[in-house]
Amino acid sequence: LFPLANYAIGSKAVQMEEDPSVDARMKRIEDEYYTLGMRRTVEAVLVVHEHRHPHILMLQIGDSFFKLPGDQLRPGEDEVDGLRRALGLRLGPTMPEEMPPAWEVGEVLGVWWRPKAENFLYPYVPAHITKPREMRKMFLIQLPEKCTFYVPKNMKLLAVPFFDLFETPRRYGNTLSTIPHLSSRINFVYHE
Amino acid sequence: LFPLANYAIGSKAVQMEEDPSVDARMKRIEDEYYTLGMRRTVEAVLVVHEHRHPHILMLQIGDSFFKLPGDQLRPGEDEVDGLRRALGLRLGPTMPEEMPPAWEVGEVLGVWWRPKAENFLYPYVPAHITKPREMRKMFLIQLPEKCTFYVPKNMKLLAVPFFDLFETPRRYGNTLSTIPHLSSRINFVYHE
Ligand SMILES: [Zn+2]
Ligand SMILES: [Zn+2]
Ligand SMILES: [Zn+2]
Ligand SMILES: [Zn+2]
Repeated sequence: LFPLANYAIGSKAVQMEEDPSVDARMKRIEDEYYTLGMRRTVEAVLVVHEHRHPHILMLQIGDSFFKLPGDQLRPGEDEVDGLRRALGLRLGPTMPEEMPPAWEVGEVLGVWWRPKAENFLYPYVPAHITKPREMRKMFLIQLPEKCTFYVPKNMKLLAVPFFDLFETPRRYGNTLSTIPHLSSRINFVYHE
Repeated sequence: LFPLANYAIGSKAVQMEEDPSVDARMKRIEDEYYTLGMRRTVEAVLVVHEHRHPHILMLQIGDSFFKLPGDQLRPGEDEVDGLRRALGLRLGPTMPEEMPPAWEVGEVLGVWWRPKAENFLYPYVPAHITKPREMRKMFLIQLPEKCTFYVPKNMKLLAVPFFDLFETPRRYGNTLSTIPHLSSRINFVYHE
């Protein structure tokens, strides 16, 4: 891990959410289930440190909505390819002469399941569910020593410390709040 | 994973807790820190299934105390060797002619830290703590298709379903309740 101070932040054009509401999103997940099959989502856990304490880079939209950079995979798209595409879209440069960071996709930290088109994810497929509507996978990303992240103007990129995720799980929700647990087995090496 | 019904339960002599109280335990952790160094504990996550839903085998002592089979390592003892020794002690046969199950120690699921000699564990070393008093590691065990577990008479061996750990985390506490999260990345294969 490298210090937060190694990373620079640029900005780029607004990126709107695809769905206007949670209900619209659930409806789309259900509709797409019948046309495209189960939704597959990949998310990136970008870790940096401050004073040798790990921090996760998260996107904040509005006051209280936090998410990891990531995206729904296209039909047939490979998980790692899709995650690299999503990282480029959310945090990569927009100028063709700027090199995007080398997104090194590492280990799977956790997998989440949406049994029905409802706004709740489980870390397992609940009993007797045979057709879950979404599978979401969190991957650890090895960041380069330095780079610039280009953040859409309607979002903020926050470095959230592990203690904050662990001590105020409600603020970050069911999935993000468990990142400290999910990465506890990873032996982070702190570079200055 | 194999069905719970594949496993038989025998019993053996009572095994008392080493410390009479939590306070006594904390005092011993602190005293041993100065003589033996940081306490290292290893624990085993034994997984079976019922109706293709994963269940964890846990020891219950009294009405409300749950723990995984495991033990404190001896000075210099290897983690995997120590975990096999602990499994033999807690769940192995006592008759010399009985073969103990082959305890196949698999992946690390999570690591927990006790920053001070207090009854609380974190999934990371809290900021500015340089001398944690305990490190606890949970390992996944690949169980044989069938075997008999010999359980001390003062304990019960329970198969706790993932949904129970996930839905009533308070009952199982800070560490055990996260086992469904910690194993979500493992692709369990269900044998009948
Ligand atoms: Zn500091
Ligand atoms: Zn910080
Ligand atoms: Zn059933
Ligand atoms: Zn059951």
